[in-house]
Amino acid sequence: MELDIPTRFERDWDRTVEDAPLRFAVVGLGGFARNTALPAIADSDYCETTAVVSGSPEKADRVADEFDAAYALTYDEYADGVGADAYDAVYVVTPNALHLPHVETAAELEKDVLCEKPLEATADRAERLVAVCEDAGVSLMTAYRMQTARSVRWVRRLIDDGVVGDPVQVHGEFSFRLLEQGGPDQWRIDSDLAGGGALMDIGVYPMNTARYVLDADPVAVRATSHATQPAFDGVDEHVAFQLEFPDAVTASCTASFNAASASRFAVTGTEGRIVVDSIFGVDDERRITVETDGGRTVVDAAAPNEVTEEFDYFATAVLTEMDLEPDGRHGLTDVRTAEAVYESSETGTRVEL
Amino acid sequence: MELDIPTRFERDWDRTVEDAPLRFAVVGLGGFARNTALPAIADSDYCETTAVVSGSPEKADRVADEFDAAYALTYDEYADGVGADAYDAVYVVTPNALHLPHVETAAELEKDVLCEKPLEATADRAERLVAVCEDAGVSLMTAYRMQTARSVRWVRRLIDDGVVGDPVQVHGEFSFRLLEQGGPDQWRIDSDLAGGGALMDIGVYPMNTARYVLDADPVAVRATSHATQPAFDGVDEHVAFQLEFPDAVTASCTASFNAASASRFAVTGTEGRIVVDSIFGVDDERRITVETDGGRTVVDAAAPNEVTEEFDYFATAVLTEMDLEPDGRHGLTDVRTAEAVYESSETGTRVEL
Repeated sequence: MELDIPTRFERDWDRTVEDAPLRFAVVGLGGFARNTALPAIADSDYCETTAVVSGSPEKADRVADEFDAAYALTYDEYADGVGADAYDAVYVVTPNALHLPHVETAAELEKDVLCEKPLEATADRAERLVAVCEDAGVSLMTAYRMQTARSVRWVRRLIDDGVVGDPVQVHGEFSFRLLEQGGPDQWRIDSDLAGGGALMDIGVYPMNTARYVLDADPVAVRATSHATQPAFDGVDEHVAFQLEFPDAVTASCTASFNAASASRFAVTGTEGRIVVDSIFGVDDERRITVETDGGRTVVDAAAPNEVTEEFDYFATAVLTEMDLEPDGRHGLTDVRTAEAVYESSETGTRVEL
Repeated sequence: MELDIPTRFERDWDRTVEDAPLRFAVVGLGGFARNTALPAIADSDYCETTAVVSGSPEKADRVADEFDAAYALTYDEYADGVGADAYDAVYVVTPNALHLPHVETAAELEKDVLCEKPLEATADRAERLVAVCEDAGVSLMTAYRMQTARSVRWVRRLIDDGVVGDPVQVHGEFSFRLLEQGGPDQWRIDSDLAGGGALMDIGVYPMNTARYVLDADPVAVRATSHATQPAFDGVDEHVAFQLEFPDAVTASCTASFNAASASRFAVTGTEGRIVVDSIFGVDDERRITVETDGGRTVVDAAAPNEVTEEFDYFATAVLTEMDLEPDGRHGLTDVRTAEAVYESSETGTRVEL
């Protein structure tokens, strides 16, 4: 098969957007919000930040200043609807177990919601989060960056076009040393706030990317997880999980909060193979290697920040009534799968989904 | 840590060998024997082929001619000890389920044995194979090429030296399209002769290489295997298995007889990462990437054919009483692990070893 290699990846979902910008309240001002999401919104075509929400009034003021947001709100003020006329949508970027109350507020205020992954700390809470948005008739997107990265979208199209034949085996790896970025006292390794450890925060990347590029959901999971260091008591420091998809396809995935940086995704099919190395980090280079009977092609096509893409994708969906692919139910499937991973690890059995 | 990168890999087991050559009877003259093993013996420092054994007298004659072997024997003649004075050791390279009788003959004849992997088609038969050699006091080596590939031996030394810190997660992939190399009527997919499918023939490469470079044996396995095509009825066309090693280390491995060529091995540790791509094929290039906090190093150091190395390693061990690392008990562990893989796949449970 002849490969159609773009010199520059374009938005395959681009369309005319009227009524932009979509005005955001950004709920939660941790490192990812300040360093990545707010700059991405500022760089976007269709979005702007008009309110920022934090537990710390000082931080809210400072960030509102920096990003030119009209409202600096506390969580209580946000819950009370202060300044709600100033924004159209809510981006929830708090610890996982706080997503539900903030999404409930958004739904009450009839705001569309972009919610960070994983959707919540438990499947039960994620289910309620999805239901509250459905009941209120607001849009809900789970913030899977890989699904708006143009390069990863291209990989998905190649697979859908049959470039690798029928997919057979996927491998995904994502690891880094978390404790070097914030020490042992952080919510990502607090079981109550995160719902787990490496799996919930970074294991969901290979998990969701496998689902995305295969356009399929796992039917069963086998897994093992470990914590060897006191800092990871009660959560998974390391996790290895094997997803079983329909048609005999498997995805062998690992994630670790205490290993050297790895960020790789590979799909081997009956007729070829696609490897993206590195893939999951915001700044990863996404070098795509496509191997088929026709030869080997390495693609380093330019692609912009997928977080900017994510916000514009969400805004386009909301403003033009385009379907949101990673919607609430899609995100819920990952939380259910994550719970199955933990169950499999605990019970030593294959857990069906 | 400063990396000591050889410009050329040397034999780390080299020593003075007297009484060479070690004279071999090569039992089984399939494609690997004719195209790879016999030329490797001819290229070796310490080995020569003095007898060849086949079910076909014509083939035995032809191959004996080509490789200058004094004896061309049928299996019956070999079993009767014809020409046994002409050889010192036996290389068994028949279908897996025929290893045992040929090794029994070798043991009776007091010949040392180099036996192809996997050692036999079942753990029970592999156990008997090992016992018969132990009882006869002959040396037995399982022919794991990766353990004599200088490049892979170097990777093991790096890991042993702590270059990646404590190993955490291993990924291994080995696949190719078997049916393009011999069609559906071949012993590698005959359950009785092979003991299984992709796992027994090629899945043992990532399995054994993980054991080798980690210098550890798995304590449990979780696995799934599938056959989607009629040609693979009764054996695994695809297999995905997760090995659990001591100290929370996992190896996520896949093998397939019906997927595009993949041949890759990666070890991620707490302090770094080593990737070998490609690794398991005889002609693979073994590009070694070492990533540590000190940077990224790609090594393409020259290394000779590991099959030649394998024969010289075996000869050196036998002639100098050097310990054989991949001995019979070592090879038996893989057959037991393979049976655990199949059991886990069938029962949906974690199987302890």
